Amino acid sequence: MFVKNCWYCAGWDYELSQGKHALLARRIANEPFVLYRKPDGSVVAMEDRCPHRQAALHLGQKEGDSLRCMYHGMKFGPDGRCTEIPGQDKIPPQACVRTFPVVEKDNWIWVWMGDPAKADPSLICFAVGPGDKNWNIKTSQVSVNANYRLEIANLMDLSHLTWIHRKTLGGTDAWTRRKTQYTKLPRGINSKFWMHSEPPPAFAQHLFPPGAVFDMSFDVDVTLPCNFVLHFQVYTSGTVTDGPSNGQLMLDTYTSQAVTPRDEDWVDYYYSWGTSVATDVPGMSDMLLEAINAAFLEDKAVLEAQYRNVKERPHVKQVGILLDAGPEKMLWLLDKFLAEEAEGGR
Amino acid sequence: MFVKNCWYCAGWDYELSQGKHALLARRIANEPFVLYRKPDGSVVAMEDRCPHRQAALHLGQKEGDSLRCMYHGMKFGPDGRCTEIPGQDKIPPQACVRTFPVVEKDNWIWVWMGDPAKADPSLICFAVGPGDKNWNIKTSQVSVNANYRLEIANLMDLSHLTWIHRKTLGGTDAWTRRKTQYTKLPRGINSKFWMHSEPPPAFAQHLFPPGAVFDMSFDVDVTLPCNFVLHFQVYTSGTVTDGPSNGQLMLDTYTSQAVTPRDEDWVDYYYSWGTSVATDVPGMSDMLLEAINAAFLEDKAVLEAQYRNVKERPHVKQVGILLDAGPEKMLWLLDKFLAEEAEGGR
Amino acid sequence: MFVKNCWYCAGWDYELSQGKHALLARRIANEPFVLYRKPDGSVVAMEDRCPHRQAALHLGQKEGDSLRCMYHGMKFGPDGRCTEIPGQDKIPPQACVRTFPVVEKDNWIWVWMGDPAKADPSLICFAVGPGDKNWNIKTSQVSVNANYRLEIANLMDLSHLTWIHRKTLGGTDAWTRRKTQYTKLPRGINSKFWMHSEPPPAFAQHLFPPGAVFDMSFDVDVTLPCNFVLHFQVYTSGTVTDGPSNGQLMLDTYTSQAVTPRDEDWVDYYYSWGTSVATDVPGMSDMLLEAINAAFLEDKAVLEAQYRNVKERPHVKQVGILLDAGPEKMLWLLDKFLAEEAEGGR
Repeated sequence: MFVKNCWYCAGWDYELSQGKHALLARRIANEPFVLYRKPDGSVVAMEDRCPHRQAALHLGQKEGDSLRCMYHGMKFGPDGRCTEIPGQDKIPPQACVRTFPVVEKDNWIWVWMGDPAKADPSLICFAVGPGDKNWNIKTSQVSVNANYRLEIANLMDLSHLTWIHRKTLGGTDAWTRRKTQYTKLPRGINSKFWMHSEPPPAFAQHLFPPGAVFDMSFDVDVTLPCNFVLHFQVYTSGTVTDGPSNGQLMLDTYTSQAVTPRDEDWVDYYYSWGTSVATDVPGMSDMLLEAINAAFLEDKAVLEAQYRNVKERPHVKQVGILLDAGPEKMLWLLDKFLAEEAEGGR
Repeated sequence: MFVKNCWYCAGWDYELSQGKHALLARRIANEPFVLYRKPDGSVVAMEDRCPHRQAALHLGQKEGDSLRCMYHGMKFGPDGRCTEIPGQDKIPPQACVRTFPVVEKDNWIWVWMGDPAKADPSLICFAVGPGDKNWNIKTSQVSVNANYRLEIANLMDLSHLTWIHRKTLGGTDAWTRRKTQYTKLPRGINSKFWMHSEPPPAFAQHLFPPGAVFDMSFDVDVTLPCNFVLHFQVYTSGTVTDGPSNGQLMLDTYTSQAVTPRDEDWVDYYYSWGTSVATDVPGMSDMLLEAINAAFLEDKAVLEAQYRNVKERPHVKQVGILLDAGPEKMLWLLDKFLAEEAEGGR
Repeated sequence: MFVKNCWYCAGWDYELSQGKHALLARRIANEPFVLYRKPDGSVVAMEDRCPHRQAALHLGQKEGDSLRCMYHGMKFGPDGRCTEIPGQDKIPPQACVRTFPVVEKDNWIWVWMGDPAKADPSLICFAVGPGDKNWNIKTSQVSVNANYRLEIANLMDLSHLTWIHRKTLGGTDAWTRRKTQYTKLPRGINSKFWMHSEPPPAFAQHLFPPGAVFDMSFDVDVTLPCNFVLHFQVYTSGTVTDGPSNGQLMLDTYTSQAVTPRDEDWVDYYYSWGTSVATDVPGMSDMLLEAINAAFLEDKAVLEAQYRNVKERPHVKQVGILLDAGPEKMLWLLDKFLAEEAEGGR
């Protein structure tokens, strides 16, 4: 079950060159398609299935704006219409391939899997990409053998940093004590909170003397389908015990994460992290990327084992805890969107 | 769905030695069996399943004309009848294994998967094997993860040489312009055509000056279940523009190909290519084999991706094109044979 | 289908250390659980599934007597009750995990998969473990992709040593000629027999001059679910032709084998072999282990191929032979226990 009327991230823009065979096979919400760039640089997303005998178009070849199926040579324009069938002059109108709206933003390629008439680019979530001159952003990706609902639950309860990520992103148990302020977004939830006088994340503790503490600000947007953007700032430890720190801003960072459901069983995770140019020091963004790469492998191990358990006993009665509040909010919103689409809405 | 009353190629004769453990496990039309040679050299094909507790007979051992199951020691004669049960004197009549008629011809081992009473060796298709003294034939094999119907469609429309095989067997787009003469065969279709003043196949173009052209004759038998035999000749470019070339025969070749359905999802492809001794030059048949080996890996990639698409959406409405005429003729014949067998005929 | 009310071997005691992450994920009778040792050394077996969101507990961490799930930090005592939920004080009573009775005996860890009230340690089968000071026992293990019923049939008809194990444990065909004395056990069958003036097993024949023969005694307990314990003795060849040898005891050995069904498709096989200290010579127990390691790989190949055949045609009519008497006795007993449990008995 997937929301179709939304923008899904299909990868980083640098994955798609002008090369003759630069055809990227992707699957989102269980729809296989192929991506390619036209000579003007714009991206086409086309169902990965020739209408003739279902050959895979990603094994084809680019010709100008068009894509040629290299089984029997049928050629398709960027609108999916067949423009050439070897051996005949007439082209039947049903010889066409479905195409999907595509937008590039923040160095991500976004594909709209639903009704093209509703593909409004302003619905794409805010993010900070590696091309932003004010930030020094590093990028990566990973695939996880789990349903994306488990990823949503993971991202909406950061208390798991205490446990799964105790050697990487964690380092304090303040997560369970924090006071979070939730705000509804049109397609998601914003949560904001402060941690005061807490040790830095485990991956950075070697940079400071033992016992060093800081104030840290978290400002997270989670939006449908499963995008996570965190503005994370570190301040010197101030005197205020509630609300914003009165310490000095030491490090200003953004991490932008798109968790795209490939199908019911896999997600493709495209993510980045980096500092503002103003607070950057050499090697800092590289360290952030190392830390998040390690952390996401920790998540992968836990989520894949969890998903095997869920698939084996899908109807086990589960026990709820207070920290489920965040995940439940976002999964409720997802179910609301799914229900509305099922009824023909949105 | 497989035609049972026909000869299927189970491999090359040289795969089956007189060695004690020379037992070849094969599966054709979803029936697993084991092949072995008796001391007189003739081949036995026996169900790969001991009637006692279903142990695999291909893990057994040859004893004279017989095969002994090496789990509990039951011995079976070449007719499949059990002749020894350790620990007892009486042998129940139901202690027997199904055997299949086998014929060796053109260095291929042919197995009849249907009613043994109908196993007429004269139904085996014509081919030119590596043992033929008049030809210098080289052999090979490959397995493809696709249903054999896709292979039939592939072999019955050679226009795909233009696209899939543009760097190997292709080299001209004359395939879509050719005039083919089709003739019914008792179990298939013969097609004949000429190409005049065309460049040679891509794999051979380095042998000639740029722009060199030739006349080429194609004479193809495709017969059920999925055998393809092509008599391919190259002539110096003549003056005639239709019908046989009046140039000089430069190269006379035969390629014989047997595409055996292992089950619904796999085919085992045994094939050869080579020149007549009269037109041979050293290295020529080796080059033909290299070219066809490379080409069949090109087909394998395309057919396997196509088959994944077909399995995912088996009921997609497909768009027909004029070049489907050949594939449709042969698939129609296959379906006719399947229907006749289902009604008890043939 | 598994008998639940019985002790299943879950592995060797040395597999489970006091290490922080010494958590052993096992599956028996299709129930996944995790094993760990408390500081006092006793072993806990706990369902491998957090009651919150089904995270795998074997990815958790030991804390004293307890196990902490490292996804959201819930902590469970050795009785399976949750004692800590981060972020809240109240712990709902349903926040608990199933635990299983565990006993260590003969260096094996035994787990009771059924009703804990019926978990009587005296039901554990007799065995001779590597910790027994009177024996020099070596241990090993292997996994086999087959249903455990095939293993029972294998172990209850040792005539297969003549065939499968002709190069290892076999070496004589006396197996089919032997007179076996069967005795019922409460949960299995004992069989006793002698072989007189027979060559030694193949793996030991190089130790003696050609033609050397011995008297050998076999005393086997096979008990449910699938335990096999053989007291195997070798004597100098005596003059008696029936009943016990009047030769001299040369070698006194025990092999203890536990074949644990992981699920319907896999068994985990924990086994040992070794000599009495009284009859030991350096290198002898090592050679016995080498022989049985090789033999069980022979069985693995045969049983896995047999199981593939059985899965493909589960309803094939099989042919019975006289040597099936042993397997049938034990499978009959297994079916009796299964039927009794299905009716709520035992």
